[in-house]
Amino acid sequence: MARLFVNTLRAQVQSISKYARNASSLIGRDFLTLKDYEKDEIETLLWTAKDLKCRLGNGEIYEPLKGKVASLIFQKRSTRTRLSSETAFSLLGGKACFLSPDDIHLGVNETIRDSAVVLSRFSDVILARVYGQKVLDDLANFADRPIVSGLSDTYHPLQALADILTLQEHFGYVKGLKCAWVGDGNNIIHSLILGGLPLGMEFRVATPSGYECFDHVIKDAKNLAEKHQATLTFTNNPFEAVSGADVVVTDTWISMGQEDEKEARLKAFADYRVTKKLMSNASKEAVFLHCLPRKQEEVDDEVFYDPARSLVWEEAENRKWTVMSVFLHLLANHRPLINKPKF
Amino acid sequence: MARLFVNTLRAQVQSISKYARNASSLIGRDFLTLKDYEKDEIETLLWTAKDLKCRLGNGEIYEPLKGKVASLIFQKRSTRTRLSSETAFSLLGGKACFLSPDDIHLGVNETIRDSAVVLSRFSDVILARVYGQKVLDDLANFADRPIVSGLSDTYHPLQALADILTLQEHFGYVKGLKCAWVGDGNNIIHSLILGGLPLGMEFRVATPSGYECFDHVIKDAKNLAEKHQATLTFTNNPFEAVSGADVVVTDTWISMGQEDEKEARLKAFADYRVTKKLMSNASKEAVFLHCLPRKQEEVDDEVFYDPARSLVWEEAENRKWTVMSVFLHLLANHRPLINKPKF
Amino acid sequence: MARLFVNTLRAQVQSISKYARNASSLIGRDFLTLKDYEKDEIETLLWTAKDLKCRLGNGEIYEPLKGKVASLIFQKRSTRTRLSSETAFSLLGGKACFLSPDDIHLGVNETIRDSAVVLSRFSDVILARVYGQKVLDDLANFADRPIVSGLSDTYHPLQALADILTLQEHFGYVKGLKCAWVGDGNNIIHSLILGGLPLGMEFRVATPSGYECFDHVIKDAKNLAEKHQATLTFTNNPFEAVSGADVVVTDTWISMGQEDEKEARLKAFADYRVTKKLMSNASKEAVFLHCLPRKQEEVDDEVFYDPARSLVWEEAENRKWTVMSVFLHLLANHRPLINKPKF
Repeated sequence: MARLFVNTLRAQVQSISKYARNASSLIGRDFLTLKDYEKDEIETLLWTAKDLKCRLGNGEIYEPLKGKVASLIFQKRSTRTRLSSETAFSLLGGKACFLSPDDIHLGVNETIRDSAVVLSRFSDVILARVYGQKVLDDLANFADRPIVSGLSDTYHPLQALADILTLQEHFGYVKGLKCAWVGDGNNIIHSLILGGLPLGMEFRVATPSGYECFDHVIKDAKNLAEKHQATLTFTNNPFEAVSGADVVVTDTWISMGQEDEKEARLKAFADYRVTKKLMSNASKEAVFLHCLPRKQEEVDDEVFYDPARSLVWEEAENRKWTVMSVFLHLLANHRPLINKPKF
Repeated sequence: MARLFVNTLRAQVQSISKYARNASSLIGRDFLTLKDYEKDEIETLLWTAKDLKCRLGNGEIYEPLKGKVASLIFQKRSTRTRLSSETAFSLLGGKACFLSPDDIHLGVNETIRDSAVVLSRFSDVILARVYGQKVLDDLANFADRPIVSGLSDTYHPLQALADILTLQEHFGYVKGLKCAWVGDGNNIIHSLILGGLPLGMEFRVATPSGYECFDHVIKDAKNLAEKHQATLTFTNNPFEAVSGADVVVTDTWISMGQEDEKEARLKAFADYRVTKKLMSNASKEAVFLHCLPRKQEEVDDEVFYDPARSLVWEEAENRKWTVMSVFLHLLANHRPLINKPKF
Repeated sequence: MARLFVNTLRAQVQSISKYARNASSLIGRDFLTLKDYEKDEIETLLWTAKDLKCRLGNGEIYEPLKGKVASLIFQKRSTRTRLSSETAFSLLGGKACFLSPDDIHLGVNETIRDSAVVLSRFSDVILARVYGQKVLDDLANFADRPIVSGLSDTYHPLQALADILTLQEHFGYVKGLKCAWVGDGNNIIHSLILGGLPLGMEFRVATPSGYECFDHVIKDAKNLAEKHQATLTFTNNPFEAVSGADVVVTDTWISMGQEDEKEARLKAFADYRVTKKLMSNASKEAVFLHCLPRKQEEVDDEVFYDPARSLVWEEAENRKWTVMSVFLHLLANHRPLINKPKF
C-alpha cells in the first residue's frame, strides 16, 4: 500500500519533470545556453531576478525551495559562481551541496552517464561548471533533473543574465543599447549576444585575429539578429567597435587553464586594453562591464574603478539574483510581485 | 543560577546519551557495524527509511533534527556517501558540516582521542569515512556522541541497509532470498551478510582464492547463520554461487587505494565478471546490485543497464533514505506513519 | 518604482552599516582585535555567549540571522575555527559559505580590494583566517561588511573570548585572576592580554629569549594595564610566571607554517613544558588552558588530561558560543535573557 502511494505521487512529480515543457512555465528545463530561451522567457528570468533582489535583498524571508537539493559541481574553481549559486539556493530555503574536483571527477571514476543518473537521484537540480560544453550536454542527456551551466568553454549564460539585468537597472531599458565587446571571442560574449539580441540589444564585437568567436555561435547569432532585427557586427578594430557605444564590455584574456599561452595573448591583445582614451570614443554616458576577476592587463584603473562608469560591482552582485531566479523557475512556479521592468 | 539551569538541562540531555541504551530506542548508539544490531533494530531502521522516502521523497517538510549538528569526516573521498549523508541530515533540518582530509587529519595533527572529545563538543553525531576500522573504534571509544561508519576497510553498514531496502521494495520481502556475491571478499559483502542474515536472507559468497572475506567476519557470520537458521556458504566458484540465486551482487575489484594491485587483481578476478551468461544461471527473475561507482571490468553493460534486472539506481537513491533513518534514530525518537513492511 | 523602492530600503540598510557606530550596539563593527573593544563591549559579547550557550545548548531554536550570509575564508586550515564558525552561524539560522584556499586566493587571482568589495555584495559578514594581519586590515578597509578575524599571525581574538568565558564559568569571575602564560609570545597570548586586562585579569607572561610578544602589542598592553590598574609582567622565567597563578596557559610552540624551525624551537622551549612540577608552583586550585590542537612537547599528559585542572574541552566548546555571540552582535541587536554574569 505504501508502495502504491509512493508510485502515485512519483507519477505526479514526473509530470512536472524536465520533459514536460509548456509555454507558461520553465519547470524542468535545462539552462545550458540562452540560445534555448525565447525573448519572453529571458525577460521572465530577469523580471524574477529583480523581484527577488527587491524582496530578499531587503530582508524578506522567502523559501519556496525548502526540501529541495542542488548539487553544485565545480570541475573549475570559482569564487563568484560558487558564492552566488550556493547562497542563492540556500536563501530560497534549499540545501546546496558543493562538490569540488576532489569530491567528484566527472567522467573519470565513473562514466558521465552513471554520474548523471545517480546525481538525479540525490538532487532536484544540478549546476556544473566545466571545461568542455560536451560534459554539460552529456549530463543533460542522461540526467532526469534540470542541468544548469555554471560556465563552459563555450557559454556562460548566468553571467549574461547578470550583465543584462545590470544594464536594465542602469539605463531603465536594454532595447537598442549599443554594446561593444573588446577582447577575446569567448564564452562571455557568446552568451551575452545570444541573450541580448532577442531583447533588442545591438552588438559590435572586436576581437584580435585568431581570437574570434566560435563559428557556430556567430552563425546562431546572425540568425538571431535577423529574427529580432538587431544590429550585429564583428571586427578586428576596437576603436570601431567602441565608437558611440553605450556599453563597453571586456574580460580577462588569460582565463584559468590558458596560462601557458600568456605571452602570445599579451601580444595579440596589446591594442585591446580598455583605456580612458578608448572609452572617450564611446557615448558620453557609456558604462563599463567586466565579469571579474579582473587582471591588470585588460583595463585601466581609471576605467575599472570609475564610480560613474563602472558597473562591475553591481554586475557581480546580480550574479546572485539571476542564478536565484534560474533555480526558482526550473523548480517551481513563481509570480513576481513587482511590476515587469521595461526591457 | 544560570549555571544551575544549564547543569540541570545538561543532566537531562546526558540521560539520553550514547550510554543509555534501552530496548525501544536507538538514541545514542554507535552505528559501526550491523553485527551490533538485532533483527528488530535493523527492521526498524529500514521501516523508517521507507517511511521517510514516502514522505520527504514526496515533498513533505519534516525537520526533527533542527538545531542539531553532524560532523561528516571524510578521510576517503566519496560522491555517494557525501551527497547522501549531507543532504539527508540537512533535509531533516540539521546542519551538516563536511570535513575533507584537508580540514581534519584524524590522528595526524592531534591524537584521535583529542579529536573525538573536541568533535563531541561541536557535534551531535559524527560520521566518519576512514581506511582502517580501528579509527572508527577509537573515535567511538573516546567520543561522547554517536559515531556512524561511512565505510571502513572492514565494514560498510550504510550500504548494506540500502541494499536490503532495495530488495525489500522490489520483492516485497527479503526472508529466504538467495543472494549471490561474485567478487572480492570486502567490506560490502561483510556488512550485507551481517545485516541480511538476521532478516533471513541466504548467502552464497564466491571469491577468488586469496580474496576471501575476513576470518573474523566469516566466524561472526557463521554464528549469525546458525542463530537465524539461514543458509551461508563460501566458495571459489562463481557459477555455483549464482546458480538459482534471486540476487547477484558485486562491487569493483579495484577500490580506491588499491590501484597498485590492479594487474594482479584483473587476473584473479578474470572469471568473476558478471556477464549475461553468468546471470542466466541465476533465477529467471534474478536482479543485480552494485554499490557504484562501477568500473567496466566487473560487469557487462547488458547486465548493468538492464532496466528489468538492474536495481543499481534505486539502490543508490536508497543510500539517502537509509542514512537519514540512521541519523534520525540515533538522535531522536521516531514513529513511522506507514505500516511496517514485510521483511 | 521598483527601483525607488529598493533604493529607499537600501538606504535604511546602509544606516546600520559598519560605519554607523553607536554606544549601545556593535552592529556593523569589525572584529579584528580586542584592542578595539571596550570593557563593557567585551562583557556584552561574553554575556551573550553564555546566554546562547544556556539556550541553544539546551535545544532552544533561535534563528535571528535567518536570511543572512557569512563568507568564511580560510587561507590557513583549521578544524576548530571551521566547525565553530560554520555551525554557530548556521544554528542562528544563517547560511555560512566555507571557502578554502582552493576556492579563493586572497590577493592572488585578484586584488584584495576587489575581493573585499565583491564579498561584501554576496555576504553580510566575512570571517577570514589568514597568515598576515595586513590581509585582514586590507579586507576591513575595502569591505562594506564587518570583517571577523578567524586568526592571524598577530591576533586571535575569538580564542581569547573563549578562554575568558571558560575562566568566568569556572571561577565565577575573572577580575583579579592571576594568569600565567608559558610559551611562545604569539597571537594567542596577544589577544588574551588585550581582552583580559580591561576585565581586570592579571598577566605574567614567560617567553624564551627571542620569542617575546610583538613590541607593538607589549606597548598597547602596558597602556591598557595602566588604564585598568592591572598587573602585567614579562619574563624569561616560567617558574616565576607560574608562581601563585590561578591559570596556566600555553599553546603549541610549532604552529602551522613553522615546521621548518622545529629543531631550534624544541631547544628554546625545553624549559617551557607545562609539567606537573611546574603546575605545583601555581595556586593549589590552578587550572590549565590550551587552545588545541595540542602537541606532545608543550604539556604533560598528567596536566593535559587532569579532569580537575584542565579546562581544555570546555574551552574548545566555548569557541562555538563566543563566535556565535560575535556574529550575532555584528549583525543584529540582541538582549540576553540570563542575568549578566559577574566578571
